[in-house]
Amino acid sequence: MVSIREVGPRDGLQNEEPVPTDAKVRLLDALSATGVRRIEAVSFVHPKAIPQMADADEVWTRARKAHGVRYSALVPNPRGAERALAAGFTELEVVVSASDTHNRRNLNRSTEESLAGLTELIATVHAAGATVEVIVATSFGCPYEGDIAPARVAGIVERVLGDGADRIAFGDTTGMATPRRVRDLLAAVGRIPLLLHFHDTRGTGLANILTALELGVTEFDASVGGLGGCPYAPGASGNVATEEVVHMLHDMGIDTGIDLEKLLEAAALAEQITGRELPSGVLRAGPRSRLVSQ
Amino acid sequence: MVSIREVGPRDGLQNEEPVPTDAKVRLLDALSATGVRRIEAVSFVHPKAIPQMADADEVWTRARKAHGVRYSALVPNPRGAERALAAGFTELEVVVSASDTHNRRNLNRSTEESLAGLTELIATVHAAGATVEVIVATSFGCPYEGDIAPARVAGIVERVLGDGADRIAFGDTTGMATPRRVRDLLAAVGRIPLLLHFHDTRGTGLANILTALELGVTEFDASVGGLGGCPYAPGASGNVATEEVVHMLHDMGIDTGIDLEKLLEAAALAEQITGRELPSGVLRAGPRSRLVSQ
Repeated sequence: MVSIREVGPRDGLQNEEPVPTDAKVRLLDALSATGVRRIEAVSFVHPKAIPQMADADEVWTRARKAHGVRYSALVPNPRGAERALAAGFTELEVVVSASDTHNRRNLNRSTEESLAGLTELIATVHAAGATVEVIVATSFGCPYEGDIAPARVAGIVERVLGDGADRIAFGDTTGMATPRRVRDLLAAVGRIPLLLHFHDTRGTGLANILTALELGVTEFDASVGGLGGCPYAPGASGNVATEEVVHMLHDMGIDTGIDLEKLLEAAALAEQITGRELPSGVLRAGPRSRLVSQ
Repeated sequence: MVSIREVGPRDGLQNEEPVPTDAKVRLLDALSATGVRRIEAVSFVHPKAIPQMADADEVWTRARKAHGVRYSALVPNPRGAERALAAGFTELEVVVSASDTHNRRNLNRSTEESLAGLTELIATVHAAGATVEVIVATSFGCPYEGDIAPARVAGIVERVLGDGADRIAFGDTTGMATPRRVRDLLAAVGRIPLLLHFHDTRGTGLANILTALELGVTEFDASVGGLGGCPYAPGASGNVATEEVVHMLHDMGIDTGIDLEKLLEAAALAEQITGRELPSGVLRAGPRSRLVSQ
């Protein structure tokens, strides 16, 4: 069994042109009906910083909460965490970047300053009975700094686990992960509660997942239809497409709980609401079991 | 060391809208300068069947033959083999499909009839001092019949090797290969002189190559820029892009002899001469070592 977290509604839509609230709710509801067990639903960020998520409270209020699905929210700071907790979320995510340059560009402070702020945020969220996942962005490389030493990432992991983080996610923020980088980083951090988030910017998305599977990782992010794009390379692919991941895993005999046909319907909906052709091969060509009629 | 055969000039361009002779020669010459050691240059097919290759003789005459590069040609029948030998090729390829339905659709005869014809063709080519690779199409699945039993493919392999074929290529004709199917087929055929030809139609291209590498395969086809498309799913990707394969291999410390920057120039040329955006992530986003200027 592999646990897929569907991130299209948050990570995906946050990196597309803004879409109406109605469309977001429809996509969330369609995904909740696919059998997926985890969905990153919204982020509680400042609407001026990220207009795509300005209606997070309304989206979440209107979305159907499916039995058996764990929903999570991304929060940038204590204020966002308060909003997420008030909205009823029990799984929160925060981001810190392994690259100092990327952290400054993304969050306007150093990695060290971000880490210092996490201690209290984690304690506050725990006091409210919720969990915190720390997403370490640029874990496999930074578009400004280049390679990031696995030892640096391992140091961040050790620190936030010491602060009580419930799980670590390694974000392949700009698609710099490769099978080799996956091996190197996993060797450096050892066994920890881990989720991996890959992009398919340079074609290595499924090869990275395959490598991580062989090394024992069982939790992965993926984005329906490949929603999201790559902010650093206009026109390039971003997140791995959920249906490509599920298609490969099911063919390997690995269950995900997801109904691929329902997922493909959700991917078609994602394409419809964004109005652009999404970069998903399985959406385009269909699963390998779909034959050409003669 | 992994040996990449660049198939863009033949397999790629044969599945694109026809381009001028000049453009074909420019692309071949650009590829010959990348350091790649093998190029599938042209096919000698009937111009009415495949107008894209009607100028094969002229393209080949005008192309610069680089020292250290092995050039090959695809031939459909004894007449094509005669033309290829007359043009000076010493490496020929023929196709037979593991799927009887696909063979009938593609070649207008049964797999058995195609195999029967190969015996004499191989003898003729050998008598002229050249080699024959047999490409087994639909080795990982057929768009009409679905899964193809590895034992059926193994039977074809045994027969054509018995007839003297110098090498076998397994063609993933419509992108149905997955890591599992690669493992299953390689286990069924054992150690043979083998080249693998993958498509990236469903995102598994590099994952398949990674799996095959782990199993000892060292020869792969790839198409510059991902030239070629998928004739069975309009708009879908076909051949794995050479630069994505090279990018991953070099990151793993595996040499190919290819200069990635020169290859990217050839991919940009391929995009220019076809006039469409090619599905290559590394062409779009650049290699992972290319940093964003601050």
